[in-house]
Amino acid sequence: MPYYIGDVIKEEKQLVARTQEQFRESGVAVRIDTRVEEIDPKSRQVRLAGGESVPYDILVLATGTKALMPGIPGVEREGVFVLKTLPDARRIKAWVRDVPCRKAIIVGSGFIGMEMCDVIRGLGIETQVFSRGPLPVNRWDPEFSQMVLDELTRHGVGFVTGVDAKAVEEGKTHRLRLVTNRGEDEADMILMAVGVRPGTELAGRMGLPLGKSGAIRVDFSQRTPLEGVYAVGDCAESFHRVSKSWGNIPLGDIANKQGRIAGRNIGGGNAIFPGVVGSQCFKVFDLEVAATGLDEREAAQSGFHPASMLIWGHSIGSSMPGNRKLGLKLIADRATGRLLGGQAVGEAGAVSRINTLACALWSDLTIDELVWLDLAYAPPVASAWDPIHIAAQALRRKI
Amino acid sequence: MPYYIGDVIKEEKQLVARTQEQFRESGVAVRIDTRVEEIDPKSRQVRLAGGESVPYDILVLATGTKALMPGIPGVEREGVFVLKTLPDARRIKAWVRDVPCRKAIIVGSGFIGMEMCDVIRGLGIETQVFSRGPLPVNRWDPEFSQMVLDELTRHGVGFVTGVDAKAVEEGKTHRLRLVTNRGEDEADMILMAVGVRPGTELAGRMGLPLGKSGAIRVDFSQRTPLEGVYAVGDCAESFHRVSKSWGNIPLGDIANKQGRIAGRNIGGGNAIFPGVVGSQCFKVFDLEVAATGLDEREAAQSGFHPASMLIWGHSIGSSMPGNRKLGLKLIADRATGRLLGGQAVGEAGAVSRINTLACALWSDLTIDELVWLDLAYAPPVASAWDPIHIAAQALRRKI
Repeated sequence: MPYYIGDVIKEEKQLVARTQEQFRESGVAVRIDTRVEEIDPKSRQVRLAGGESVPYDILVLATGTKALMPGIPGVEREGVFVLKTLPDARRIKAWVRDVPCRKAIIVGSGFIGMEMCDVIRGLGIETQVFSRGPLPVNRWDPEFSQMVLDELTRHGVGFVTGVDAKAVEEGKTHRLRLVTNRGEDEADMILMAVGVRPGTELAGRMGLPLGKSGAIRVDFSQRTPLEGVYAVGDCAESFHRVSKSWGNIPLGDIANKQGRIAGRNIGGGNAIFPGVVGSQCFKVFDLEVAATGLDEREAAQSGFHPASMLIWGHSIGSSMPGNRKLGLKLIADRATGRLLGGQAVGEAGAVSRINTLACALWSDLTIDELVWLDLAYAPPVASAWDPIHIAAQALRRKI
Repeated sequence: MPYYIGDVIKEEKQLVARTQEQFRESGVAVRIDTRVEEIDPKSRQVRLAGGESVPYDILVLATGTKALMPGIPGVEREGVFVLKTLPDARRIKAWVRDVPCRKAIIVGSGFIGMEMCDVIRGLGIETQVFSRGPLPVNRWDPEFSQMVLDELTRHGVGFVTGVDAKAVEEGKTHRLRLVTNRGEDEADMILMAVGVRPGTELAGRMGLPLGKSGAIRVDFSQRTPLEGVYAVGDCAESFHRVSKSWGNIPLGDIANKQGRIAGRNIGGGNAIFPGVVGSQCFKVFDLEVAATGLDEREAAQSGFHPASMLIWGHSIGSSMPGNRKLGLKLIADRATGRLLGGQAVGEAGAVSRINTLACALWSDLTIDELVWLDLAYAPPVASAWDPIHIAAQALRRKI
C-alpha cells in the first residue's frame, strides 16, 4: 500500500500546476523556487536571495514549520530523511524505489512516524520505530497508545523504547548505522520524525512578536501587529476555544482555513477565524486514532478540574457484522460539567465520534447534554446508545 | 446476509432473558404475554384480559406503535406480514425458512421496507418494492432517494411506482397475488411496510390528551397530565429542538432515552428529556442513508425561510483508496443563517456527517460556524475541507 507518499506527490503536482494556471489566468505573478532573505517592514520591501528587492503593500507570512533534525553527527548522510515538504517526499520515494532498501528505522513515534510506518512497512520493508517514550503518540492516553503499539506489532513493526539517538554512521550489512543509548542498529534508510517547529526566522528578524508557542502572534483576522502584514498556517498561532488560550497546532486543515480568512480580509471582506478545538487524527494500518479538545494535563494547566471516563464500546450495533471494538475517552470539568476533550481509537468509527465531540466542544456542551444527544441510530451503522452516550452517562455519574 | 432478522431475534431473546433475570433479582414482578384491557385512572387500577385488576401508584404507558395494515381484502392470508414486533420477525423468519419462498413483494418504500429489501434479497429471494410515490424514502430529497433507488436496482430489486394496493388473493405460480391499480403480481410473501401509528387506544380511553401527531402528550419529565401517569417511547410525543414543536418520531433510540428519563423521575430523581433534532438513518445494501433536523417543507411550515445546498464530495481524502462519493445537503434559515437540517447519502461517511450536524443543530450553530468547524483531518480518513465545510461555504454564499 505505497499510496501515501505517491499519492501526495501526484496530487500536489496536479495542485501546483492547477494553482499556477489559475494565478496566470487572474494575472497574479507567482514565483516558485524563490528564497526570501529578508523583509523590511518599514520600506515594505522583500529582499530575495539573488539580491532583487520586491515592494509590497500587503505581506502574508505562510512560512509553515521546519522539521526538526536531531543535532547529532551523521544526519547529513545519504539515506537520512525528514518528511515535511514535497521535495522531502520525492526524495524518500526515489530512495525507496532505487536503493535496495530492505530495512528502515523511524526515529520518533508521533503521528508522522506512525503514518510513515504504515507506508514503508506496506512496501514490504522491515521497519523499526525508535521512541523516546515507552509508548507511541503521547497526544493520546496510554490505553490508546497501547492499541497503536499493538497495531504496529501486529503488522511486524518493531518498537524500541527509551531511545536517545547519538549518531548516524556508515553501516555494514545495511547502508547506515544508528548509534543510540540502547546500542547500534543498521538500516538502509532513517527517517527522523521527531517533530516540527514554526518557521519564524523571517518573522523574528522583522521584529514580529512570537507567542509562548514560538509561533507568530496574530489576531482573529490573521493580522500581525505590523500593518499590512498577515500570518497564516503552521507558522502562526490560533485561538483554542476550550483552553481560551493562543497556541500553535500545525495541521493542514487549520492552515487552509486561516489562509482563506486572511485572503478574504485582504480582499476587502470581513472574516474572523473563530479558532480551533484541537481535533486531529491519523490512520496507522487498520486503526483510526483521533482526538479533540484537551487531555487531562492540558485541562488542569488551563485551570479546569478534569474528570475522565474511558469506555470500550462498538463502532456499530453490537450484534451486527462488521462491528469493531471502539475505545472512547471523555474528559469534562468537575465544576461545570463542561466537555473538555475526547479521544477515540478503533478500526472504525473513531473519527466519526471525535467529529461529533469536536462540534460539542465548539458549542460548549456539557456532559449532561451529551447523554441525550440525538444521534442517528440503526443497528447496521450505530447503536441506540452510542459510545458517546455511554461514556457521557458513566462520566456524569462519576462527577 | 440474512443477519438482520436473525440477529435481532437472537439479541432480543437474550435481552428478554437477561431483563427478566434482572427484574427477578431486584424483586420486580414482570408479566409477559399479558394484555391490558382497560385502565381506570380514578381508582388507579389496571384491568387485565382475564378480568383480574391490578392497582398502581405509578403507571408508565409504553405502548409503542402499531404497524399499519392496508384496509384491503385478503391481508389476513398466510404469507402477508407486517414487521413491528419480535413475534412478527419470528413469523417472517420461519416463513422464509420453511416455505419455498422464491419471490417477495414489499408494499411501502420507507426505511423499514428498505431494510427488509436488503435482508430478503440477501437471502437470494426475488424482491419487488411497490411504492405509492415515484421514489423511495420521501424523508430524503429526490436526489438522494434516487441514489437509494439506484442501489435497489443495482442489487436486482424491482421498484414499481404509483401503486395503490387493492387486494391480496391466492396466487397461481406463487402463493399469493397482489392486486393493485397497476395490475396483478404474484409472490410467496408480502410484507406490508406502509407505516405505523402511535398505540394510544388505552391512553385515549383513559382520557389522556393526544397531540396533533396522534401520540400521547407529555412534558419534559415524560409525565402526562394525569398524576402518576407517564408515557414514553413511540406512543409519546417529544420536543423537536429545531422546529420548537412537539411531535412523534417513533425511533428506538428516542424511546430508550425517554424510558430512562421517566425511570429516573419515578425513582425520585430529577431528569428532563431535552428533546430531539430528528436524526435518523438506515442502511440498504452498501448505502448509508442519514438525515437530521428539518427538510425544506418542514422548515417553511415551522416559520423559517429555508435555503439549501446540495454538494457531492468524498467520504475521505479524494486521492485515497477506499474513497467513496458522498452527497450532502444542508438546509439553513435565510434570516438568521441558522442550520435547520441536513441529509447525507453514500457508501461511507454519511452517518458520521449527520451526527456532527445533529450536534450542530442541538447547539443552534449557524452556517457561518459550520464553515470553520474544527473537524479531525488526515487524508486516509477525511479531507482538509470536509463536505460539511464545502456545503456550508456554498450555502453561505447563496444566503
